[in-house]
Amino acid sequence: MPKEYYYIGEQSLIFPREVYLISSASVVGKKEGEGPLGNAFDMICGDDKFGEDTWEMAESSLQKEALSLAIGKADLNPEDVRYLFAGDLLGQNIATSFGLMDYEIPLFGLYGACSTAGESLSLAAMCVGAGYAKTVAALTSSHFASAEKQFRFPLEYANQRPVSATWTVTGSGAFVLSQKKSDVRITGITTGKIIDMGIKDSMNMGAAMAPAAADLIAQNLEDFGRSPEDYDKIVTGDLGYVGQEILISLLKKKNIDISDVHEDCGILIYDKETQGTGSGGSGCGCSAVTLSSHYLPKLKDGSLKRILFVPTGALLSTVSFNEGQNVPGIAHAVVLEHAKKET
Amino acid sequence: MPKEYYYIGEQSLIFPREVYLISSASVVGKKEGEGPLGNAFDMICGDDKFGEDTWEMAESSLQKEALSLAIGKADLNPEDVRYLFAGDLLGQNIATSFGLMDYEIPLFGLYGACSTAGESLSLAAMCVGAGYAKTVAALTSSHFASAEKQFRFPLEYANQRPVSATWTVTGSGAFVLSQKKSDVRITGITTGKIIDMGIKDSMNMGAAMAPAAADLIAQNLEDFGRSPEDYDKIVTGDLGYVGQEILISLLKKKNIDISDVHEDCGILIYDKETQGTGSGGSGCGCSAVTLSSHYLPKLKDGSLKRILFVPTGALLSTVSFNEGQNVPGIAHAVVLEHAKKET
Repeated sequence: MPKEYYYIGEQSLIFPREVYLISSASVVGKKEGEGPLGNAFDMICGDDKFGEDTWEMAESSLQKEALSLAIGKADLNPEDVRYLFAGDLLGQNIATSFGLMDYEIPLFGLYGACSTAGESLSLAAMCVGAGYAKTVAALTSSHFASAEKQFRFPLEYANQRPVSATWTVTGSGAFVLSQKKSDVRITGITTGKIIDMGIKDSMNMGAAMAPAAADLIAQNLEDFGRSPEDYDKIVTGDLGYVGQEILISLLKKKNIDISDVHEDCGILIYDKETQGTGSGGSGCGCSAVTLSSHYLPKLKDGSLKRILFVPTGALLSTVSFNEGQNVPGIAHAVVLEHAKKET
Repeated sequence: MPKEYYYIGEQSLIFPREVYLISSASVVGKKEGEGPLGNAFDMICGDDKFGEDTWEMAESSLQKEALSLAIGKADLNPEDVRYLFAGDLLGQNIATSFGLMDYEIPLFGLYGACSTAGESLSLAAMCVGAGYAKTVAALTSSHFASAEKQFRFPLEYANQRPVSATWTVTGSGAFVLSQKKSDVRITGITTGKIIDMGIKDSMNMGAAMAPAAADLIAQNLEDFGRSPEDYDKIVTGDLGYVGQEILISLLKKKNIDISDVHEDCGILIYDKETQGTGSGGSGCGCSAVTLSSHYLPKLKDGSLKRILFVPTGALLSTVSFNEGQNVPGIAHAVVLEHAKKET
């Protein structure tokens, strides 16, 4: 008889069946390719329009390429993938809709701002873990130019940016999940609530998202009965330098010290000194391409045994912002572990 | 031992555990209250701003009220609900984010245009069916004024509308799902792919969505080995009069005749003759409030034994539309059945 329920603690889950991450891919733009992780990405495109007419279609191409590569690396065909769990930052998820249309795979469209990388992996893992599919894929994207146009100013304005502003990553990360054993296993998830600390500055996303990350990390540790040292790394999505400081200090107030194990994808992806990227990278694509290119290889070879991957999102639109609303945050965490292949 | 997999056919699923819809609620605006279903809604608000300053916050209030009512009807407290699966039509899902924030319940934000009512029920049922939660809620909303402002013209323009245009429903429907036995059971789902038939007219959403509905209904019948007569009703979300005609004729070409059992929430919700609503109602709220107020009571008392609920979505944004992209469609179906309570 199956166990009755699989939830643990307040906000976490484990799965009835083992869930493996069997392949992944990262596709990025020129600037990301010139950054510290440049050698690790699967594809770097010199033309940020990816041969398309618009920034939005360029972002669609990112998703299309990333999924194609991830499916190919898993030695599968698109028809072997039963569900897609995907999203992006644009209004009405258009990068996703137009990017994934040609695959003709049933699609669950998701929106959790930059936390969507965690949300998509969570739902994909829940799906595989329940026996709802043999193979599914999770993917997200962002594009500097489509995001600037959507949320800030068109690039042609050449506006100045405060140092607290983050730089939206041009990139897409795709992940194929299956019950088929591989070197990396998803062993649990912790799902976030919306946390509103009254931040109103859309040029300081790190501050808006850090409280949600702090809340979620504390909850994950409590739910799983772990301390920060039980993770080789606790990796947030795109808090940047400003958000990292706030996160560490918020958790210290709860007597949790993650300073030794914390890393942030937004900090890793650019060279602050030479790339002029302000507080760091951000966007749905930031954490996804960093997980795929930087952390998964280390989880595969066992140099990392267990990490907590915590993409963070800032919940705003230009409408909510212009109407004077706060910028609340949300975070969704996935526990990833090295798993020795039994073949 | 649990069965290995629960998927059936190409795009459908059943669940390891029985999933029940234990309560629901519908909250609507003035116009919907004056329509044919007026007596059936739980709450009709005379002021379409719901006491708020903006249309977006008014839509947030709709979601807040609908969820509160649904949770109350199930004799539960918000803390009994482990996950929310929710979405709306606005860019970056802001009606959902600001409406559900105060509940402090882990949230999966979803976007499938008007099909989100089906997507949210699908994922919520998958979650309960897998034993991931005792109780979850699924909800969606739309608001005429926030949608017109987002997708067409501000109300103040008083622009004219073609007869093929649908009227966005001001309303939110919320559903509480649980393993606890009740009179209505969700016995399966069929998840949609994006279907693009080259429609470019954003004032004719019915035509954009009908091909996706036709594809999904045919797939559901094939996957479950059913004919249209195995359903007392096949209920689409918001195709309206224009889309209904296209749907029925597309399915006839596949030798499937649903004309005897087909109904459309967008057609039911307004009186075409007296309310000036063009092709019918539309929006994430349309199918949700119609399911809650009109179909669920009939499923409860057994006057309907089994229906196929098929919310349909048109995947566009003002950006994609202005850049000349097509308007592809998607649909997500849920099988709802009368279940005699065993108490």
